[in-house]
Amino acid sequence: MKIRQLFDYETWTYTYLLWDETTKEAAVIDCVAEQVERDMQHIEELGLKVKYLLETHIHADHITGAGPIRKRTAGEIVVHENSESECADILAVEGDTFKLGEQQIEVLYTPGHTNNDITYLIEGAAFTGDTLLVRDCGRTDFQLGSNEEMYKSLTEKLFTLPEDTLVFPAHDYKGFSQSTIGEEKQFNCRVGAGKSYQDFSTIMDNLNLANPKRIHIAVPGNMKCGDLED
Amino acid sequence: MKIRQLFDYETWTYTYLLWDETTKEAAVIDCVAEQVERDMQHIEELGLKVKYLLETHIHADHITGAGPIRKRTAGEIVVHENSESECADILAVEGDTFKLGEQQIEVLYTPGHTNNDITYLIEGAAFTGDTLLVRDCGRTDFQLGSNEEMYKSLTEKLFTLPEDTLVFPAHDYKGFSQSTIGEEKQFNCRVGAGKSYQDFSTIMDNLNLANPKRIHIAVPGNMKCGDLED
Repeated sequence: MKIRQLFDYETWTYTYLLWDETTKEAAVIDCVAEQVERDMQHIEELGLKVKYLLETHIHADHITGAGPIRKRTAGEIVVHENSESECADILAVEGDTFKLGEQQIEVLYTPGHTNNDITYLIEGAAFTGDTLLVRDCGRTDFQLGSNEEMYKSLTEKLFTLPEDTLVFPAHDYKGFSQSTIGEEKQFNCRVGAGKSYQDFSTIMDNLNLANPKRIHIAVPGNMKCGDLED
Repeated sequence: MKIRQLFDYETWTYTYLLWDETTKEAAVIDCVAEQVERDMQHIEELGLKVKYLLETHIHADHITGAGPIRKRTAGEIVVHENSESECADILAVEGDTFKLGEQQIEVLYTPGHTNNDITYLIEGAAFTGDTLLVRDCGRTDFQLGSNEEMYKSLTEKLFTLPEDTLVFPAHDYKGFSQSTIGEEKQFNCRVGAGKSYQDFSTIMDNLNLANPKRIHIAVPGNMKCGDLED
């Protein structure tokens, strides 16, 4: 599977193009409304046939570009069923798989940042959304987030993947682009080196973060798959 | 060879860690002064033994972190001989090679942005500095830059590499992280699709870019390898 990482500087969001080199069947993970033209140009230049528009969760900090890209490709929008999205084409659950040519993307349910977080797995790489970030993890204080679910997703699901699995997050704020499961097990600031749930929970409860500036626009916008004119 | 891409949001600069997984011998390409602590933490966590601090050229937009990292590792600073740097350990020319374990990094002289641009080649990947950017190329209007040299470096050197060679640039301003030689030959805005030298030169002569804000600090700072207190 070919992987191309793209970045939105305004919202610190990573978008990923995945494609099968033989058939050019492709998926887009977490596209951003303001980057639709850039992404479409890249998709067209690379000759990709978009089959899936995969969302790692209903985002609170940016509006997805999935709806607009769906109108211009054959892409079906995928979100977790807990999102209760009415605009998505596929409501996914743990174990669902999506094929690009002979290659497969698998759904791992990894809640904690919200109640609808998906990690998309391919051979050798995990697209971890806002669950696992490089040396960090997503916040847990809105959208039905939960310290307990986050700790379980990190330690009981993601940290049981092979140690050399590449980690591709949905966001980064320090200039990191990727990591590995092995590194995060050792060095993740919030949950690495065997930190207990109690230690993790104390860290999470004391982050004192302001709400994302655009949360009141982004969440309803994403419940419409970014099709704001509809 | 393992590759890790890092980004500095202030100056839009990509830094790369390259290492041989067996010996952990490593090189750092284009580190940034303000990111030395982040980079050193990453180097230490990954257990890397820095052998080389590779500069793609004397930068005008940021000060290198190579000097400070040299003081804390065994890294030798490498720049092209045309830079006339007195602080570097190795003044490189085309064809020079640097070994990390059994793996090899090769120097390709690709001037045009300055008179001292190096592309570092490993198997399957080219770290192209400010010569080839994704869908773009570096400016040619200071530091002995030259439209003619840039056009030659792009079309006669870089575009003769295998088409599937990954391109890792020194900067990006649109959210692109990598490309391939094949893509750039087709889609590069300034020189792709067989653009003539005349067309290229007209584009470059009409960019009307302001000088980098920090050029008067950055260039002399980089001639000291970022060792500003010396």
